[in-house]
Amino acid sequence: MTEAPARGPYAKSAARRSEIIASATAVFGTHGYRGGSLRQIAKQLDLSLTTVMHHFPTKVSLLAAVLSQEDAADTDFSQRAARDGFIPTVLAIVERNLGRRELVRMFTVVQAEATHADHEAHAWLRARYADVIPEYAAAIEYDRSLGRLTTTTDAVMLADLAIGMWEGIQVRWLADGTDPVAAMRVALDALLLPTPVSAAGR
Amino acid sequence: MTEAPARGPYAKSAARRSEIIASATAVFGTHGYRGGSLRQIAKQLDLSLTTVMHHFPTKVSLLAAVLSQEDAADTDFSQRAARDGFIPTVLAIVERNLGRRELVRMFTVVQAEATHADHEAHAWLRARYADVIPEYAAAIEYDRSLGRLTTTTDAVMLADLAIGMWEGIQVRWLADGTDPVAAMRVALDALLLPTPVSAAGR
Repeated sequence: MTEAPARGPYAKSAARRSEIIASATAVFGTHGYRGGSLRQIAKQLDLSLTTVMHHFPTKVSLLAAVLSQEDAADTDFSQRAARDGFIPTVLAIVERNLGRRELVRMFTVVQAEATHADHEAHAWLRARYADVIPEYAAAIEYDRSLGRLTTTTDAVMLADLAIGMWEGIQVRWLADGTDPVAAMRVALDALLLPTPVSAAGR
Repeated sequence: MTEAPARGPYAKSAARRSEIIASATAVFGTHGYRGGSLRQIAKQLDLSLTTVMHHFPTKVSLLAAVLSQEDAADTDFSQRAARDGFIPTVLAIVERNLGRRELVRMFTVVQAEATHADHEAHAWLRARYADVIPEYAAAIEYDRSLGRLTTTTDAVMLADLAIGMWEGIQVRWLADGTDPVAAMRVALDALLLPTPVSAAGR
């Protein structure tokens, strides 16, 4: 079934929302969430502040929309990891991120600010770790049960480290272009495949 | 020989400078460099803006002073690594950083912002990578020549990864207190000691 294209005022409103979210991603990625303002975002889009506030009445409501773009991108992680394996699935996301530089930068800047307990995104950041780490740990355990990974280290620690190294490697890429896919491949292999799979069963 | 304590206007001026640098570290760590202002820093110290600007005429001159605290801390890295080994030397710094949380946070926030090519600290960030990576790579090579490390991966790649994982692991610590020393130990061992040293010579 083909969906009828959205039309009229609703479609226009959805397009405007997306435009505001894209502009907020760039502004928060440059000035941080705290340093960015609805006024800057309106100016960048050549809109009135009233128009922006019609869609996002507060800066924090816009932050929530900006951050949910990130979450929405990887809803099928577990299924993909079960099918393709943890390492190839993570590497595919790192590779896809090459085309979403400003989103990754926004995420990096807001995450750094949000380590503060009184930051508006602090609860989001903690919830994100609490969601993602068990999901990654389960994917690592599953791969191990199939003999696809040879590490014997605790799976939660491995999930922590995979996420930590990923974030650090992406900062470097944002700073000077160092290939994050090659770096993640070496790091994940060292962490998760300490002895080649072919030798592991002996 | 005991140094005579600095006295009079010079000592007072040096103390004031340190006080301003400490306050700027907290303000930049919370609001970012771009979101922070000399006015906020003056207010936090209950000083006039004129007094702050007497010591640091521009925000960027204060940024340079704030960032140089970080660099000054590890000038003897190479000597320590040659003596104690790369892994113990890095772990000692991670451990020391537990007591410098706001400095680490400031560094994390400013680094994320500074990935932008037009950021005031962008050149500093690139120069830092250009300095630290060869230094770490040389320490890894030296350890390898002594048989203290068993990895055969390219030393520059290993230095890149050690720094990347370190930064990511510290973000996690800042966010929710996850022990960065334990995480770095597992990560560095996986990366640099893929087979135990005792078995490596066989």
